Amino acid sequence: MDYERFFSEDVAAFLPSPTRELFKKVDISKIYSLAGGFPSPDTFPLEGMREMVDAVLDKYGAKAMQYGGTQGVPELVALLSSGSGEAPENLQMTTSSQQGIDVCARVLLDPGDSVLVDTPSYLGALQSFKDYRARIVPFGEGFSFPEDAGRVKFAYVIPDFGNPSGKTMSLAERQALVELAREKDFLIIEDSPYRALRYEGEQIPTIRSLAPERTVQLCSFSKIFAPGFRLGWMAGPPEIIHQVYVCKQALDLCPPVFDQYLAAEFMGSGALDRNLAASKEYYRRNRDLLLDALGRHMPSGVSWTRPEGGFFSFLTLPGDCDTLALYDTAIKKGIAYVPGSFFYPDGGGRNTMRLSFSYLAPGKFDPAVRLLASLLF
Amino acid sequence: MDYERFFSEDVAAFLPSPTRELFKKVDISKIYSLAGGFPSPDTFPLEGMREMVDAVLDKYGAKAMQYGGTQGVPELVALLSSGSGEAPENLQMTTSSQQGIDVCARVLLDPGDSVLVDTPSYLGALQSFKDYRARIVPFGEGFSFPEDAGRVKFAYVIPDFGNPSGKTMSLAERQALVELAREKDFLIIEDSPYRALRYEGEQIPTIRSLAPERTVQLCSFSKIFAPGFRLGWMAGPPEIIHQVYVCKQALDLCPPVFDQYLAAEFMGSGALDRNLAASKEYYRRNRDLLLDALGRHMPSGVSWTRPEGGFFSFLTLPGDCDTLALYDTAIKKGIAYVPGSFFYPDGGGRNTMRLSFSYLAPGKFDPAVRLLASLLF
Repeated sequence: MDYERFFSEDVAAFLPSPTRELFKKVDISKIYSLAGGFPSPDTFPLEGMREMVDAVLDKYGAKAMQYGGTQGVPELVALLSSGSGEAPENLQMTTSSQQGIDVCARVLLDPGDSVLVDTPSYLGALQSFKDYRARIVPFGEGFSFPEDAGRVKFAYVIPDFGNPSGKTMSLAERQALVELAREKDFLIIEDSPYRALRYEGEQIPTIRSLAPERTVQLCSFSKIFAPGFRLGWMAGPPEIIHQVYVCKQALDLCPPVFDQYLAAEFMGSGALDRNLAASKEYYRRNRDLLLDALGRHMPSGVSWTRPEGGFFSFLTLPGDCDTLALYDTAIKKGIAYVPGSFFYPDGGGRNTMRLSFSYLAPGKFDPAVRLLASLLF
Repeated sequence: MDYERFFSEDVAAFLPSPTRELFKKVDISKIYSLAGGFPSPDTFPLEGMREMVDAVLDKYGAKAMQYGGTQGVPELVALLSSGSGEAPENLQMTTSSQQGIDVCARVLLDPGDSVLVDTPSYLGALQSFKDYRARIVPFGEGFSFPEDAGRVKFAYVIPDFGNPSGKTMSLAERQALVELAREKDFLIIEDSPYRALRYEGEQIPTIRSLAPERTVQLCSFSKIFAPGFRLGWMAGPPEIIHQVYVCKQALDLCPPVFDQYLAAEFMGSGALDRNLAASKEYYRRNRDLLLDALGRHMPSGVSWTRPEGGFFSFLTLPGDCDTLALYDTAIKKGIAYVPGSFFYPDGGGRNTMRLSFSYLAPGKFDPAVRLLASLLF
């Protein structure tokens, strides 16, 4: 039986995540992987889990296993509110930060609407916008407004330690983007999954703080707690949050309740802050190991970003290198990365790649980068 | 600032869940509530939770806190496969059964497409279909094809102990629906959240078993484990499941992983079967208490369904009664129900109401129904 006639028009835009498809082919425990954007399990509060579960069951009992409110459990919303200075009505818990992206797209995009993106950009966001048949339009140079942008509903940016770029937007760039958004009348989706993971330098004000009236900020527990709990939250103008709330009733009624109480316990007990300090030490060391190894082994003509936080450095090779064509060979030789072209809506950036320093064991950065460099030329 | 210009066309169809809005007004612990469709916390495996968490942490460690595959964790998919006889490629875990409804709508519906429903029907499904700007078209008498149905993509039914009707479709009705679907060429979404909760009589074959080539069955852990974990699954033709899988990557990457391992432990250890047997005893007693109280207190002219399972009985009052108009008075007097008109896409059924027997404490059914009857005439 042929099912094509039953599918919605959106389905024609669906594309399996190329990174998830890549990872299916490979047992990453057998190779050097600089590919996945997974947080290190060494940063998970595994030791404290039994104690957290005990506390949740003691405090909340069966309530932690029941349906919860659509906005999120009040205890967690209150902690996020006091931690961020956001009024509770500006906040909505999401079942993962990815759902935050999807629900923003659902609430804001009609087919043919445009989304401005800073390329390269997060694949899961590009895919979500494509799934709603939006046009994905890269900014012009320096976050300028591109010609023929069409009806721009919002810009999507990852201002802190971008995925995959590893770059951070300066205050001047954020201010310029806000001015542009006000002039051209579009919203800004500020995706902040890595913001808490800064390893050097000073935090720069969020875009949400510069333009609260037109910015929705997406946040995640995946990198500060653990991704298996699928918890994120968003902060935005209450009029937009209200529509997200109503939409979310039909999406999944409420985020996972037991997981939310665990997150509230983790956050409220102070364990999150302690764990975050240790995670930052861990990832800073990994970043330095990667950057040092790149400096040691990469030939001239290769450049890379120096991230002040997050998980990624982005490499640019000489123009005639093709990291997608090289990929199968690299896997066979025992090293994985993500081809940079995956992060360009037009498939450009063939001479780029994303390297993640979050997951590889510290002792493996040097041999991994040496092997990678040997394949490039 | 006015945000209307930014919203997608779908947003105009969004409507806050009237039941969730109702429940916001009321502290249900202070009144007799026959309204909510919540499972009883007395049926949750609260006592066994610490042991389950220990087992999950011992067996899987940090893996239970990491990102997981989009289909679901393999251990749980394998258990569901062997329990149901479905091939693994026919299965997809969902972040709640509500998400199963939503993602089917996303993959199958374009604005203006029709969905056939057996009225009254589940509010969360009607709302999800409306959110995609589908036409909701009730079946004709006896599951017949209505005139002017338009382009029907699928029929949505809850064949076992329907919400809100409490009714079960006979085998003949299921067969007739399958014949109609084949003749008129539409799919069937078989929503089965209550199927495991049968208190008397024999199970009737699923529609999925009668027409596997055109049926997607939605299942839920909410009533057989606990709703706070937000876990459901679906079984359907692999071509449809594949599109759901691809869509889900952009929706939320994967269902909650820790929760899935808890469910696998609950299921694999045999605790689910033991707990289910106890839950069925619990709910059967509650059902009998409700039905007995209705028989004792309701005046002639009132009729109600006798459910063989699930959570609900549906009452029909004389034609001039208006359960929506009566609602605020009922709350003030200390009794809650759900007005039946919420479950009719055209707002009909004003003389009906849904009573849930899942949540009220056993000793309260008699006074609750006596109070309700006193308000009706």
